[in-house]
Amino acid sequence: MCRWIAYSGTPVLLSRVLFEPAHSLIDQSLHSRLGVETTNGDGFGIGWYAQEAATPAVLRDVGPAWSDRNLREVAHHVHSGLFFAHIRAATGTAVQQSNCHPFRNGRRLWMHNGMINGFRLLRRDLAVAVAPELYPDIEGSTDSELMFLLALTFGLAEDPPGAVARMAGLVERTGHAHDVQYPLQMTVAVADGERVWAFRYSSEGRSRSLYFSTKVDTLRALHPDAEFLRDISDETRLVVSEPLGDLPGAWNEVPENSYGIIQPGHDVIGDFRPL
Amino acid sequence: MCRWIAYSGTPVLLSRVLFEPAHSLIDQSLHSRLGVETTNGDGFGIGWYAQEAATPAVLRDVGPAWSDRNLREVAHHVHSGLFFAHIRAATGTAVQQSNCHPFRNGRRLWMHNGMINGFRLLRRDLAVAVAPELYPDIEGSTDSELMFLLALTFGLAEDPPGAVARMAGLVERTGHAHDVQYPLQMTVAVADGERVWAFRYSSEGRSRSLYFSTKVDTLRALHPDAEFLRDISDETRLVVSEPLGDLPGAWNEVPENSYGIIQPGHDVIGDFRPL
Amino acid sequence: MCRWIAYSGTPVLLSRVLFEPAHSLIDQSLHSRLGVETTNGDGFGIGWYAQEAATPAVLRDVGPAWSDRNLREVAHHVHSGLFFAHIRAATGTAVQQSNCHPFRNGRRLWMHNGMINGFRLLRRDLAVAVAPELYPDIEGSTDSELMFLLALTFGLAEDPPGAVARMAGLVERTGHAHDVQYPLQMTVAVADGERVWAFRYSSEGRSRSLYFSTKVDTLRALHPDAEFLRDISDETRLVVSEPLGDLPGAWNEVPENSYGIIQPGHDVIGDFRPL
Amino acid sequence: MCRWIAYSGTPVLLSRVLFEPAHSLIDQSLHSRLGVETTNGDGFGIGWYAQEAATPAVLRDVGPAWSDRNLREVAHHVHSGLFFAHIRAATGTAVQQSNCHPFRNGRRLWMHNGMINGFRLLRRDLAVAVAPELYPDIEGSTDSELMFLLALTFGLAEDPPGAVARMAGLVERTGHAHDVQYPLQMTVAVADGERVWAFRYSSEGRSRSLYFSTKVDTLRALHPDAEFLRDISDETRLVVSEPLGDLPGAWNEVPENSYGIIQPGHDVIGDFRPL
Repeated sequence: MCRWIAYSGTPVLLSRVLFEPAHSLIDQSLHSRLGVETTNGDGFGIGWYAQEAATPAVLRDVGPAWSDRNLREVAHHVHSGLFFAHIRAATGTAVQQSNCHPFRNGRRLWMHNGMINGFRLLRRDLAVAVAPELYPDIEGSTDSELMFLLALTFGLAEDPPGAVARMAGLVERTGHAHDVQYPLQMTVAVADGERVWAFRYSSEGRSRSLYFSTKVDTLRALHPDAEFLRDISDETRLVVSEPLGDLPGAWNEVPENSYGIIQPGHDVIGDFRPL
Repeated sequence: MCRWIAYSGTPVLLSRVLFEPAHSLIDQSLHSRLGVETTNGDGFGIGWYAQEAATPAVLRDVGPAWSDRNLREVAHHVHSGLFFAHIRAATGTAVQQSNCHPFRNGRRLWMHNGMINGFRLLRRDLAVAVAPELYPDIEGSTDSELMFLLALTFGLAEDPPGAVARMAGLVERTGHAHDVQYPLQMTVAVADGERVWAFRYSSEGRSRSLYFSTKVDTLRALHPDAEFLRDISDETRLVVSEPLGDLPGAWNEVPENSYGIIQPGHDVIGDFRPL
Repeated sequence: MCRWIAYSGTPVLLSRVLFEPAHSLIDQSLHSRLGVETTNGDGFGIGWYAQEAATPAVLRDVGPAWSDRNLREVAHHVHSGLFFAHIRAATGTAVQQSNCHPFRNGRRLWMHNGMINGFRLLRRDLAVAVAPELYPDIEGSTDSELMFLLALTFGLAEDPPGAVARMAGLVERTGHAHDVQYPLQMTVAVADGERVWAFRYSSEGRSRSLYFSTKVDTLRALHPDAEFLRDISDETRLVVSEPLGDLPGAWNEVPENSYGIIQPGHDVIGDFRPL
Repeated sequence: MCRWIAYSGTPVLLSRVLFEPAHSLIDQSLHSRLGVETTNGDGFGIGWYAQEAATPAVLRDVGPAWSDRNLREVAHHVHSGLFFAHIRAATGTAVQQSNCHPFRNGRRLWMHNGMINGFRLLRRDLAVAVAPELYPDIEGSTDSELMFLLALTFGLAEDPPGAVARMAGLVERTGHAHDVQYPLQMTVAVADGERVWAFRYSSEGRSRSLYFSTKVDTLRALHPDAEFLRDISDETRLVVSEPLGDLPGAWNEVPENSYGIIQPGHDVIGDFRPL
């Protein structure tokens, strides 16, 4: 599958999060520890919100992240307080830019790790359920893009948890109708420029790994000497497919079948159930 | 739009047809004379039938044909008696391998120059008409790929002229239902390893240019000194978006709204009408 | 050859200069008017100075600029007050990232339009003249990269006009030693983050086109209604291979065999002679 | 470093050797067992001799071999009796086509696994030793390409073992002059269309793995039921960085500091010592 990272908080140079930490996402493209595949070399993408821009920027390409110079350049020269990054391990579909994450619609970004089981069987039924006005936006051939368009169809702009739940429900019903036992396996991140929603769910109840970072003030108390922690606000938060760095106490597993919201003020965690 | 070439006849090194002639297809990628766009630099593809192979080979890539070294290498080292080549000028859709021609299904190759007008409006309705078992084969986002899958849906394997006519009919009816005046503009080539079908049609009656080569024995009589003509059989035939070379009398326009079949024995030309 | 643009002045979104003007650089990649080639589709690059960054960022890729989505994304989301952009028409050398401009060394950027005539003959002699400590930085196979490394060898960091003159002198002497009549054809831009140097020279005295923009206060007096001019400082200046936009009086030809310096305070123009 | 394979013998579809065996070279691009790196995803190349062609064909690209469709297509449609394949793990130099193996000069192919230690230090001295008429052929930035051009300089066309020995000697002397203790680490394959030379050498005496296949008649006696062995001639031979398939007795390690010649009639193995 894939690996991803979502950052929200004090604006930083992207490279400080993507390249510098021990076992960074870029390292994971070559040597993932927790992924189903150890190599995530089938393309990558970053999406970031820039000041004064109506929509987030998206940089995606088809080569491995570890050797991509443009990714390195942009990450070392662009600051953002809210960004996504994703490395892809393809499971059968083409290695092409339009199959790389994050996907964008207006101010929204979407990225996914996991799969729809039996996707070839289900693909048409799911595509037909996409709102007709969104259907022409399909550019690639992944389950991930279709899940995004379905979530948009079901109200992602107004109610992300509800829209994702309805998308997941449709995938499960469609899967079951085609005799697929466990249709859905997903960790998903969504952003709108202000907030990040992260979802961890699988039909089987054995979801791909997902972690969120401990609150910065708690971490600061644990590690008073960690310089990086002094530069970032209390509200800074990461959600990641697998832990970065080596700071004890820094990471917490997102519970099975749940979702979280990272936002100004109190973050939220709740149960996730397909509707 | 695009430019394409279909060759059927004496096995030759592909480069003799693709690179060597004056105003070759590779030249046309940089300087087309008859195309709507003079530059066809948004990807390319070749498809060729090799002996003892169950399916034709397809080589496609996203860069311009004029500078692609792999295309040059393969063309200078592979012989074939039946091959297609295509250079692309994108009209809005992504520059990605899965949007490059020719498309393949089993032993069949398909390539297209032209467009479905208002494609974003019509795309979903057309996609829904694709046979459910073929729908999962959609990899890209072009009208051309969808036209191929529709033609396959309508019996391309058994009756190419009928299947293409039914595809064109569906496109026109769907277009008219969405208030598109002239829905279809196409020159299409299809092959099955033995025969080539070429179609020239547009709803407006002003189709993109298409030419077929004069019979080799006639040409040989006209140009007794042309060495190239001595090496190839009487049955050798090309269909091209725009003429190659500079041999007077070598090219004949395919009539508006018609199709031709290049095959062992007598070639055929007939009227084309959407069904 | 190629086309390029150098911008210095009020920080703007790159797209306002690269994409929005009539006959923008992106348009020129498909339809150049003044270039030796009308198509500049063999790669592109941008280099920009970002605040707080030790070195400028460089984004380069091998496809045509007109269809590159990453270029479009970055240009629409990154601001800079000093940036370069370049579109390439290869003249024999490989289409690869390391042959794309701008080239970077420390804080310096370099880009070039033109050629060293008989480069294959001269290449080794020129490469041997590169400072041994710079030689390992050669990544590609262009004359342009070698000209940059030679200028660095000859003091580009301290005295750009002198260093470029010594580079040009070496190229001419080396060319003449190999019986090349007119060894050098160049328009070159150099930046260090504060200033831009632009050079126009050819051994033959028939240099490629180069223009600099009229002073903003003069233009503002000419065009009191031009909104764009109100947003930018008096010091804002562009140097371009061919004019953008359609504002009468906006562009002035850089004289043959001369160079200019764009800098805080008075800009400078002077004669250029190889040393 | 890298992995490679050289095949000489009965003409076969390339895919039978490159894709079909257990632990094929394509598998090794994702999961090498014996390589210094487990992932060889920084480009690939194949070179094959085709009938009636003056030079071998070379197909190279910058993405990982495991997902490249053009590689798959060509391998499944082209037959050859003598071909090379190489997958690259870059060690610092750019991921670009001109850094991919095999390299070609006239009828000769060259590929390499290993490295020149301290290459940045030695690069200029080695480049200067390349024959002036070959220097302009440098397209990339690898040690491997330079080793090839040096071997050509030293008579690769007439005496491959001698030329490679002189190249290795120069690399070692140059390295020692720059205080590099163990300058050279290499397994190299060379072909001229009739014969293959394979070299295994390292200054340290701890060379990268290299294996040659057991004689086909011996293997046939060991494995009378192995169908593949019935289709190929007694003279068929492979040299590989790491064993393919799972046939006991099929592979023999090339001894340290030695070379072999695969040719019509008796193959040869000899000591290798830098000159």
